[in-house]
Amino acid sequence: MTLGCPDQTGIVARISAFLLDAGGWITEAAYHSDQETGWFFTRQAVRADSITLSFNELRARFAETVAAEFGPRTDWKLTSTREPKKAVLLVSKDSHCLIDLLGRANRDELPAQISAVIGNHADLGELCTSFGVPFHHIPFGDDKAAAFAQVSDIVDAIDPDAVVLARFMQILPADLCERWSGRAINIHHSFLPSFVGARPYHQAFARGVKLIGATCHYVTAELDAGPIIEQDVTRIDHTDSTADMVRQGRDIETLVLARGVRWHLEDRILVHGRKTVVFN
Amino acid sequence: MTLGCPDQTGIVARISAFLLDAGGWITEAAYHSDQETGWFFTRQAVRADSITLSFNELRARFAETVAAEFGPRTDWKLTSTREPKKAVLLVSKDSHCLIDLLGRANRDELPAQISAVIGNHADLGELCTSFGVPFHHIPFGDDKAAAFAQVSDIVDAIDPDAVVLARFMQILPADLCERWSGRAINIHHSFLPSFVGARPYHQAFARGVKLIGATCHYVTAELDAGPIIEQDVTRIDHTDSTADMVRQGRDIETLVLARGVRWHLEDRILVHGRKTVVFN
Amino acid sequence: MTLGCPDQTGIVARISAFLLDAGGWITEAAYHSDQETGWFFTRQAVRADSITLSFNELRARFAETVAAEFGPRTDWKLTSTREPKKAVLLVSKDSHCLIDLLGRANRDELPAQISAVIGNHADLGELCTSFGVPFHHIPFGDDKAAAFAQVSDIVDAIDPDAVVLARFMQILPADLCERWSGRAINIHHSFLPSFVGARPYHQAFARGVKLIGATCHYVTAELDAGPIIEQDVTRIDHTDSTADMVRQGRDIETLVLARGVRWHLEDRILVHGRKTVVFN
Amino acid sequence: MTLGCPDQTGIVARISAFLLDAGGWITEAAYHSDQETGWFFTRQAVRADSITLSFNELRARFAETVAAEFGPRTDWKLTSTREPKKAVLLVSKDSHCLIDLLGRANRDELPAQISAVIGNHADLGELCTSFGVPFHHIPFGDDKAAAFAQVSDIVDAIDPDAVVLARFMQILPADLCERWSGRAINIHHSFLPSFVGARPYHQAFARGVKLIGATCHYVTAELDAGPIIEQDVTRIDHTDSTADMVRQGRDIETLVLARGVRWHLEDRILVHGRKTVVFN
Repeated sequence: MTLGCPDQTGIVARISAFLLDAGGWITEAAYHSDQETGWFFTRQAVRADSITLSFNELRARFAETVAAEFGPRTDWKLTSTREPKKAVLLVSKDSHCLIDLLGRANRDELPAQISAVIGNHADLGELCTSFGVPFHHIPFGDDKAAAFAQVSDIVDAIDPDAVVLARFMQILPADLCERWSGRAINIHHSFLPSFVGARPYHQAFARGVKLIGATCHYVTAELDAGPIIEQDVTRIDHTDSTADMVRQGRDIETLVLARGVRWHLEDRILVHGRKTVVFN
Repeated sequence: MTLGCPDQTGIVARISAFLLDAGGWITEAAYHSDQETGWFFTRQAVRADSITLSFNELRARFAETVAAEFGPRTDWKLTSTREPKKAVLLVSKDSHCLIDLLGRANRDELPAQISAVIGNHADLGELCTSFGVPFHHIPFGDDKAAAFAQVSDIVDAIDPDAVVLARFMQILPADLCERWSGRAINIHHSFLPSFVGARPYHQAFARGVKLIGATCHYVTAELDAGPIIEQDVTRIDHTDSTADMVRQGRDIETLVLARGVRWHLEDRILVHGRKTVVFN
Repeated sequence: MTLGCPDQTGIVARISAFLLDAGGWITEAAYHSDQETGWFFTRQAVRADSITLSFNELRARFAETVAAEFGPRTDWKLTSTREPKKAVLLVSKDSHCLIDLLGRANRDELPAQISAVIGNHADLGELCTSFGVPFHHIPFGDDKAAAFAQVSDIVDAIDPDAVVLARFMQILPADLCERWSGRAINIHHSFLPSFVGARPYHQAFARGVKLIGATCHYVTAELDAGPIIEQDVTRIDHTDSTADMVRQGRDIETLVLARGVRWHLEDRILVHGRKTVVFN
Repeated sequence: MTLGCPDQTGIVARISAFLLDAGGWITEAAYHSDQETGWFFTRQAVRADSITLSFNELRARFAETVAAEFGPRTDWKLTSTREPKKAVLLVSKDSHCLIDLLGRANRDELPAQISAVIGNHADLGELCTSFGVPFHHIPFGDDKAAAFAQVSDIVDAIDPDAVVLARFMQILPADLCERWSGRAINIHHSFLPSFVGARPYHQAFARGVKLIGATCHYVTAELDAGPIIEQDVTRIDHTDSTADMVRQGRDIETLVLARGVRWHLEDRILVHGRKTVVFN
């Protein structure tokens, strides 16, 4: 269960009383009270077998009681780990993030199945097939709008919990940013807000920075400006060419995206305005 | 407030109801339920001005109600940030940890005053005096027992919340480990459990490790084996001599000790058996 | 070109004069003079197209002149990036290191082809096949000696530049350690020398360390005691169970092994006694 | 000895022959050939007692021979560790960088003495005095030009090897940037090029980044845009207020500045255009 609402005294007591009443055995509980915005955030993981109600009853009762008391601005979600999740990956030619996510899904590190991969090039199709994941090749020629219409048809038919841009080299149009808001996750190969846009490693090389990074963020209509989920960096020095940075950067991109996708699928991320609360 | 007790359903609800009843506005709340030991840990930070009772009344009521209900094995503490804390530092000749802690205390990064510094050498006395901190020089010659008796007289007269071995090169006798249990904090210059005992950088050099570290831990009678509070590492390579390691290691020792001391003084650490829960 | 020899004045001058004489355009040069052992190490990368001799002539002339002058203890190697290298991987059931190395080989991050994968379980066979790499399943039942004989037959027929134990759960017998000395690379899932042997994450959990690590090292007859190539760590805290450590540890194992294997295949590592010089 | 010049074949051979001829025992040698700019960089550390010439003779002979051969664009420096170096620190009210640098100088980690500290506030005067370092209080009121004239009078009378802006909150005027070019070192409390200018932690908080950093760079007339010497980052999360960031950031600022200042004073940094080569 995740919940965000205007802060007030007694929220924790109210929620924990509700969960206790339902028999809930809390295995993980996290709270955050943001002083600046006056907003309260929480995530509670409860053992499913400890709940005396059905999942739908629990959800209904929570809506009628706790959520109603906390007011109309309350933003909450109750999900069951028994309901399997789905992810769709958008890729281009670079294999590193794709291989990594396929491997993780395969060894059950992600609480979701990868329902489909869509590529604007055919290169990565065979890899997906070998992992038993359907691959759709949709060429992006001059008519990008038509290509994106095909992409969204496939995605929306699946209705996934996550649309992961795993080094997809196309910019999502505003209507898809809107439609997949809070579900579309991108990996940008720089430590944002440095080096927005194209060729960030070349920008980093030109500026002479001593660390390069990667940023996993929710996609919004403004390029590379969505709420940041996770970032990390790796050290470089004067001996590293842009080609070296590209190679080293792959490892950071891979890790940062994998963390972000897992946290998203485990409902560990609450978005508030332009920022995220990550209970990890 | 910090509390550890055998885990059971309803603890969070009970505590938050108690705090709500006392008018408490929770600013930070952390919980941990240890699956392996079946133990529950929590730390709650409450705004002092939101409490309707006096601090002593609050403490008494908590003891009579919540703590009593959770049973005799419950280990809890209620402290007020209005009651100033005290720390005593034990040092030898190395200045890096001492300078750092004096600087932090001076700019109010630590919620405590440094009441005294005791050195087995006189070298660091002037530095302490310049920061306005009393310095006691107690030479450690052949009669170490007599020297430690003098140390403990000074420490026990102050009755500090923390006894910090800030690169103190003497091994605390078992009776002082016992008497200052849970309050004596040491910094060991290796990534424990590697390189226990003397000259850890020389051991690290001989083994050819690629990272060196430091470990902040509570002192127990078994050398370098107390509950670990914090650790960190820094990268070295084949060009680093033991002298280089000593220099680089200082920065890690300094940071790791400073974090451990601050967390201890902010009551962020709960010890259970040989391990710590750190709510930071 | 890599070279190690007893240190003396003039080595750099002699080598650079030799390379200049052969027309060599140096693109990377690294030197290390170890004060403790009195040993000198160097690695020089030269543009192949700048050399006026054939590769064999260059090698012969170097042996006759420079190497001869530096004395019989000189340990040197001249390799051409035009001679493709080969690696064999030994695996068990865990896929993370294998997938990662197959992916890297596939995108030409490693200067070698993976000639074969040998598994003591059949689980990872399909994955190898999908990457076009031959897979050999050799069950390890009661007669381990017989199984290892089969393994060594396959490996020695290929005569690879690297034998990578990519989470292979069997201990190499002493004769294979000897035969593959300087070519067999293992990944151990702890920050050595801590937690040698079995179940290092369980040992780490029991000790309550705050960082877990992985170590890539050359295999020697003494378990987990060979020269360390690379190490890295990742932060954990009290909320992490051993299962969490296993999951988080995979990412570190994967990265550390990949770095070690790449450096080995690029001839960046010089072993001297129990330690390595890594020119990366 | 440090040297930068247009790259050509035979530079290493020429320099090492020169040093050999002078009897020089090389203890550290580093080379870098920049493919992009076609520039060659080197740093050689030679044992002073192995040189058969006087230091001035060595310098003169190098100028006449090697440097002359490499052409007029060659930028080189020969310094002796026997000639003590001097540093001047500019500070304001924040003590963390100052205390740290005073401590390091005191335990001989820096190959320089701190000749003076200049503050635009009087707060840190006592601290300097206690370390035996002269402190000059120069108030910056309305007439900043007059204040800077006083600062430059003090600095130029000392003619230091480094002018360190250790959290000095004033922007150096263009003429001083020019006059102290290559000697003035600043610490900026963000991971540049992110968050240039004022209040970077507030900018970082607003953007919701997951790491904060610090950057040590040479001062140039364009604000926060000089050649970067060193950078590092530390992890933050949603619980960190800007006040927490300020506190955590201090540790990174302190370390990054200390590294940069040491490398500068050890002649490990070669500047080329807007970038640095750091042989560390």
